[in-house]
Amino acid sequence: MSMNWMVLLLCLVLVLVQGLERRGGLVAAVTLRTRERRPDPSDGAGMARWLVSQNDWGVLSTISIHLGGSPWGNIASFSDGELGNSTGTPFFYLSKLDPTPNDLERDPRCSFSLSEAPIGTCGSTDVENPTCARLTLTGKLMIMQVIQVTSADELDLAAQAMFSKHPEMQGWPKGHKFRFYKFIILDIFLIDYYGGAVPLTVDEYYKSSKQTLHTL
Amino acid sequence: MSMNWMVLLLCLVLVLVQGLERRGGLVAAVTLRTRERRPDPSDGAGMARWLVSQNDWGVLSTISIHLGGSPWGNIASFSDGELGNSTGTPFFYLSKLDPTPNDLERDPRCSFSLSEAPIGTCGSTDVENPTCARLTLTGKLMIMQVIQVTSADELDLAAQAMFSKHPEMQGWPKGHKFRFYKFIILDIFLIDYYGGAVPLTVDEYYKSSKQTLHTL
Repeated sequence: MSMNWMVLLLCLVLVLVQGLERRGGLVAAVTLRTRERRPDPSDGAGMARWLVSQNDWGVLSTISIHLGGSPWGNIASFSDGELGNSTGTPFFYLSKLDPTPNDLERDPRCSFSLSEAPIGTCGSTDVENPTCARLTLTGKLMIMQVIQVTSADELDLAAQAMFSKHPEMQGWPKGHKFRFYKFIILDIFLIDYYGGAVPLTVDEYYKSSKQTLHTL
Repeated sequence: MSMNWMVLLLCLVLVLVQGLERRGGLVAAVTLRTRERRPDPSDGAGMARWLVSQNDWGVLSTISIHLGGSPWGNIASFSDGELGNSTGTPFFYLSKLDPTPNDLERDPRCSFSLSEAPIGTCGSTDVENPTCARLTLTGKLMIMQVIQVTSADELDLAAQAMFSKHPEMQGWPKGHKFRFYKFIILDIFLIDYYGGAVPLTVDEYYKSSKQTLHTL
């Protein structure tokens, strides 16, 4: 019987490991990566900050030059800080060869859109269902030049934010003229439950003290 | 010993089932759902059609009314046909309570942006890396009314396309005034490898005969 129990125990461990791995739990356990818990939908500011801190890509929309003023959305990686040290401000690392930076030179107005879906917490709920949260930040996307809108410290923060979540970017070719950009938020559109968009000011967003970190 | 083997067999089946489930294989095996193979990046038209047929959400960008003409991106579910029966034309089911349909009434110009990331085939490659494909369709998003741009057959096609990939939408509240929309593609921006955007016309996109279906 002892052989039976050993086989059973071994198999149960295998099943458990696979289950954990499927939910991303094993990776988290191994790397001790922390992840913020999903806030309650009644906490709009916390939810918006959570969507920004847990996602690592979204869509930047500009007024296009190459398509005569049509709105134009581009997939972009971003980071608002290292994991567990979110600032709320999305930073970007964009190549001058992409249309987006050229559009911004003429008109810095921009929106940045995120879904909860890539975080993996919507389950089988449709992405357009209000309970799968979605966020659009609207404002201006500014190039970070020390002489212009940015201090050297802030540029370091942007680099640390981006390269910690997107490590391969550090090796991307210099010839492609990648530069750091900072999103200046002027309006927040958040849907995270039934009943329409959540009223949320930029001030409330930045003051959110949601810090319920936990290790998965 | 026969008891040992039974226990071992049972556990192996459990491990196998979990492994299959993790890769989406079990669902595919049960529903006989087919999924198209990722095209070679040299086949730009095939890649663009694949991104549209395999994704089920993206970002719709319009010129906003509520934010004074700023570009504004909204997360939206879509479908270009039932799985295995792709048309290339993205259809949407949008509520009049959302800002997007109101923006479209004044200016139908729109872009629709997709990443390969949600399909799950980018692995650990950064979403902004050119080998993780991204696509922006630009054109007009038109409401589907039989008297206007649409035949009754086309409206049926849109409903079948949307409800097959987003089944819960059929039960969404009538009071929210959901309507079908059809994307009229005028420009295609595709990045699927190093070397910049792939030259691709709308005609080439629609003529793509990529039909390498396979069951997972």
